[in-house]
Amino acid sequence: MLYFHNDYNEMCHEKVLEKINVCAGEKVTGYGRDHWCELAAERIRKACNNAGLAVHFLVGGTQTNLTVIDACLRPHQGVISAETGHIHVHETGSIEACGHKILALPTKDGKITAQQVEKLMLAHLNDSDAEHTVQPKMVYISNPTELGTIYYKEDLMALHNTCRKYGLYLFMDGARLGYGLTARDNDLTLSDLAELTDVFYIGGTKCGAMFGEAVVFSNPAIAQDFRYLIKQHGGMLAKGWLLGVQFATLMENDLYFSICRHANEQADAIRQAVKDAGYSLLAETTTNQVFPILPDALLERLKEKVTFTEQGRVNETSRAVRFCTSWATTDENVALLCNAIREDY
Amino acid sequence: MLYFHNDYNEMCHEKVLEKINVCAGEKVTGYGRDHWCELAAERIRKACNNAGLAVHFLVGGTQTNLTVIDACLRPHQGVISAETGHIHVHETGSIEACGHKILALPTKDGKITAQQVEKLMLAHLNDSDAEHTVQPKMVYISNPTELGTIYYKEDLMALHNTCRKYGLYLFMDGARLGYGLTARDNDLTLSDLAELTDVFYIGGTKCGAMFGEAVVFSNPAIAQDFRYLIKQHGGMLAKGWLLGVQFATLMENDLYFSICRHANEQADAIRQAVKDAGYSLLAETTTNQVFPILPDALLERLKEKVTFTEQGRVNETSRAVRFCTSWATTDENVALLCNAIREDY
Amino acid sequence: MLYFHNDYNEMCHEKVLEKINVCAGEKVTGYGRDHWCELAAERIRKACNNAGLAVHFLVGGTQTNLTVIDACLRPHQGVISAETGHIHVHETGSIEACGHKILALPTKDGKITAQQVEKLMLAHLNDSDAEHTVQPKMVYISNPTELGTIYYKEDLMALHNTCRKYGLYLFMDGARLGYGLTARDNDLTLSDLAELTDVFYIGGTKCGAMFGEAVVFSNPAIAQDFRYLIKQHGGMLAKGWLLGVQFATLMENDLYFSICRHANEQADAIRQAVKDAGYSLLAETTTNQVFPILPDALLERLKEKVTFTEQGRVNETSRAVRFCTSWATTDENVALLCNAIREDY
Amino acid sequence: MLYFHNDYNEMCHEKVLEKINVCAGEKVTGYGRDHWCELAAERIRKACNNAGLAVHFLVGGTQTNLTVIDACLRPHQGVISAETGHIHVHETGSIEACGHKILALPTKDGKITAQQVEKLMLAHLNDSDAEHTVQPKMVYISNPTELGTIYYKEDLMALHNTCRKYGLYLFMDGARLGYGLTARDNDLTLSDLAELTDVFYIGGTKCGAMFGEAVVFSNPAIAQDFRYLIKQHGGMLAKGWLLGVQFATLMENDLYFSICRHANEQADAIRQAVKDAGYSLLAETTTNQVFPILPDALLERLKEKVTFTEQGRVNETSRAVRFCTSWATTDENVALLCNAIREDY
Repeated sequence: MLYFHNDYNEMCHEKVLEKINVCAGEKVTGYGRDHWCELAAERIRKACNNAGLAVHFLVGGTQTNLTVIDACLRPHQGVISAETGHIHVHETGSIEACGHKILALPTKDGKITAQQVEKLMLAHLNDSDAEHTVQPKMVYISNPTELGTIYYKEDLMALHNTCRKYGLYLFMDGARLGYGLTARDNDLTLSDLAELTDVFYIGGTKCGAMFGEAVVFSNPAIAQDFRYLIKQHGGMLAKGWLLGVQFATLMENDLYFSICRHANEQADAIRQAVKDAGYSLLAETTTNQVFPILPDALLERLKEKVTFTEQGRVNETSRAVRFCTSWATTDENVALLCNAIREDY
Repeated sequence: MLYFHNDYNEMCHEKVLEKINVCAGEKVTGYGRDHWCELAAERIRKACNNAGLAVHFLVGGTQTNLTVIDACLRPHQGVISAETGHIHVHETGSIEACGHKILALPTKDGKITAQQVEKLMLAHLNDSDAEHTVQPKMVYISNPTELGTIYYKEDLMALHNTCRKYGLYLFMDGARLGYGLTARDNDLTLSDLAELTDVFYIGGTKCGAMFGEAVVFSNPAIAQDFRYLIKQHGGMLAKGWLLGVQFATLMENDLYFSICRHANEQADAIRQAVKDAGYSLLAETTTNQVFPILPDALLERLKEKVTFTEQGRVNETSRAVRFCTSWATTDENVALLCNAIREDY
Repeated sequence: MLYFHNDYNEMCHEKVLEKINVCAGEKVTGYGRDHWCELAAERIRKACNNAGLAVHFLVGGTQTNLTVIDACLRPHQGVISAETGHIHVHETGSIEACGHKILALPTKDGKITAQQVEKLMLAHLNDSDAEHTVQPKMVYISNPTELGTIYYKEDLMALHNTCRKYGLYLFMDGARLGYGLTARDNDLTLSDLAELTDVFYIGGTKCGAMFGEAVVFSNPAIAQDFRYLIKQHGGMLAKGWLLGVQFATLMENDLYFSICRHANEQADAIRQAVKDAGYSLLAETTTNQVFPILPDALLERLKEKVTFTEQGRVNETSRAVRFCTSWATTDENVALLCNAIREDY
Repeated sequence: MLYFHNDYNEMCHEKVLEKINVCAGEKVTGYGRDHWCELAAERIRKACNNAGLAVHFLVGGTQTNLTVIDACLRPHQGVISAETGHIHVHETGSIEACGHKILALPTKDGKITAQQVEKLMLAHLNDSDAEHTVQPKMVYISNPTELGTIYYKEDLMALHNTCRKYGLYLFMDGARLGYGLTARDNDLTLSDLAELTDVFYIGGTKCGAMFGEAVVFSNPAIAQDFRYLIKQHGGMLAKGWLLGVQFATLMENDLYFSICRHANEQADAIRQAVKDAGYSLLAETTTNQVFPILPDALLERLKEKVTFTEQGRVNETSRAVRFCTSWATTDENVALLCNAIREDY
């Protein structure tokens, strides 16, 4: 089988595993207060050009989203998100389980705009019974989005300015951040993220690590006591250095970015094959997720040799699907998939 | 000023206040375990033709909604509601504060249909990653809805059947129930509600009481330990008999229904005046809420003598507003409002 | 029967009911934004000698406790309380239901001391794994306590200073505040409370009102957005002016205090009778709760004509019980109870 | 330095790491629905002699405790625990953050008894205002306890019977279960646990794994929908097979038990050295935690070459400390520590 089902179906990049093996015999202090975590945090601060950032490591994305959001909001406050946002649709109500409503905004491409946020804020502020509704206090965006699209610097600056204007925190879910920052049309850097968001994270699980997400706070007010929050939500890994080791490795010599650039290039090849074969794409993306609209008959044949995910029926004879590449995707498998799409087999 | 702002801007029906005065000197056991609450519960059971119902009294609507819903759901379960549902838009995220997501369905008239619920359930059950999403477990409907429309017996039976089929609880918010059950096109009775829902409530605050909502459980499983839930959420009134006194009075000699029928008839007169004057209605209602679409110029003049609520702009020169009648609305005031609408002044 | 069971078994003081009747026909704005609430708040600010206080009205004690505490704490923070504190033992885990642990301190008389708080804070601050434990952030005290004892100015100043030193909020539950401030050995005033606590409340339910508690914030930081919190927790009474009317009445011409002083004096008479008859008291109190230790045989006889609550067995032949007086306790009934204790019947 | 600080300061047993390396190139389905988790579950079911058990894998202990407890309790229900219980003192209020109160029982040795539970239940059931207090619904025990002691079959059967009698769930925290089941005086088996508890877990993090806890439900009612709960609380590891690989390895050829037996034997040697040197123990234990009471002067010298944890001052010249052994503790290091205790150096 050719695996294009997801970007977390293989253990981790070989250099990450290598380093884990190297430090297997070490005696290390628990709970993330160790030299590996410190080294990884240091490398992240450096990559962000900002020595003042607070960096914390958690195991997974849902855990990170809920812990960050819970740390930032008072009970009556909610978080603005695209209606496609991962926290809104695929985390089993974890934000609500922390007591907070998600204020969902409509979207076509997975992104939300500063204008949408401004409109929502004005409606709230002009409501004479505002206290009968949830107070918006944070904007949650994913980059890349759940539809594989990315935010440009212009988008992010506009969101940043609107958030400043209305006292909102800006939080970027970077579960697939590496793929976003290495997309060919991307114009954002880690420095920009540290400057324009209050908190974001660098996803490891889907970008070459066994597991792990590195949370970066540039707003010290919301970073306060964050370790209490991690522990309370069950996210404090006893052998926390396992996270440090992985991120120290990924952040060395640009490994994180080269891994993700590779996946994007593999996705580009697939996108090209889709277009060459005369098919269209559900969403125009430049990251590691490709969303072609393919005829049912072709999909039936593909299913026999390729794994992928269904995105829903588009018309009577075609469905949208997703092919997902990763650091582990080989040229050979991409070529086989492209051939299969072109039906040259 | 003519008050058509809301149905809770006057204290209570005179008979209710009279009875409160009568029992002012009595020594009564606290926390709702008293003869007044027992009498009120007995009258409600009788009005529902069902001696097995569990009846509890709470102070207000938001409190009732959150306590009932919290009593019924496990942490990963959510409640289906119209996107216009009071719990979704006007209770400051109280359901989320109890940990539960609201699964909002689109609506034009404030109602949701069995088909919508079925579609949502099928999508959940057919999702191979269902556990990444909130499990629907309850359907919340308001009757009348927030737009003044009502559920017919056919609607409710269909919802009941769908809920049974998929193991969902059916909960009716009856904050304005009296207005619904006395609407001229209504075909539901209290008996029907006890039979077709798992739990509903008879609203007092907006229907003649000082305050108070009577919750009626026909499903004993979810009624279990409900007093613990009331106490935990701060809803257990120390002098609980105040609620009993009021409901015992309202449920005597059909007072509750005659109060509400009066308000509906006053609203009918206003609706007629709106039509007579050539204006249209945002929603066709038969209950105590009237939603005319009126020209800005007329509204400016009305504002000087009438209180009402704004529902939003409809076109460049008109806005929808709401006039709300109650047990306290006099013929005289209705006539004055109708004249003002007809601009005969 | 002679009722000494509790202080909330009769409806309300006659002047309160009178005023409610007077304003029965008024049309008033809902949700506590009305002239009655403003008048009551104004009188409370004046009685506290502090024009800057934020005053809010809620229906009951549990509701008030949970709403105030939830408004003040971040998720990882807890509230320090005596192990006898009402929030710890008699509110069905309502604070935990908001997500917060209660850090219980041992007590003999229902009070906690600044030294106890300091010791707990030092233990937390010196714990190298502090983030594995709940962060103390608030001190909750009841005045009078659940055992009828009161805090003196010296106690409160010491607690105030310790709270300032460690960044803790000081919150006084005043469900029976009137009885405390009119006890013969009391040396605290409302002004002192406004100065020495961050937030406290003036209990109405147990002190002459039908229902209602007036929350007074002197710390504006924690008062921010409090109306959202009230609404979210279901505590925003639609006809909020009912609370304003009652507190405006109680705070006029010292009514609140004269009511409570009366009850304390009645309790004094009972205490004297207990001592005269040669019995001892479980706790030395000067407020409206009397805790005599009486022989089983006497208690059996008392039960036939008096209602009271059991506090537990003290030795093989005696049990502690509670007699509770109120604004409604008559001289005649006190005399009958005293006679019964002296067995002169 | 000699490390006796904890049992989670080294990565994992070599066989576990070996197996992780072996399956590094595999393509595996995410979220714990893979052949490794199935194999591990199968081996656990077999070791428990019970084919009907539901087995789930989570990353860490706090996460497991909060997810299991949250899955079992309704909002008004609480969990009984020793006052020394990990959930009560060292998990940052994670159970309260899920809404539930911990009902703490006093203990000397970290264990609680069936008698204590029965007494608490009777007090609750006989309370005429029971609904003003939290309803006990679960008993939480740790085996070994936080003080290194273990439950015997007799203890557990008594707890089981009391729980059955009062409708309580019995939950065993087995973060260090391996050390308990291989203690020389232990008389419990995995089969017994499956029979006598409703749910327990086999700790991996402290017993040879990199991370991971295997939850075993014998009560199917509370296991229902458990995957939703795992996901909601952020505990569903994307590459869930990492947990399966580790537990499959640990449960093969008794590796889990031989690892833990080794640690207990090392601890026995330390206990003997303590006694030989004339010192006493804070608690008599047979597991991998040793709690000697040692003179301050000796402890100062030890600190220079040994890591350990402080348990508190016992008298003016001595303190209790903890030495903790693990699968990684070598004979050589134990000999060095024993010599240091005997001061033969």
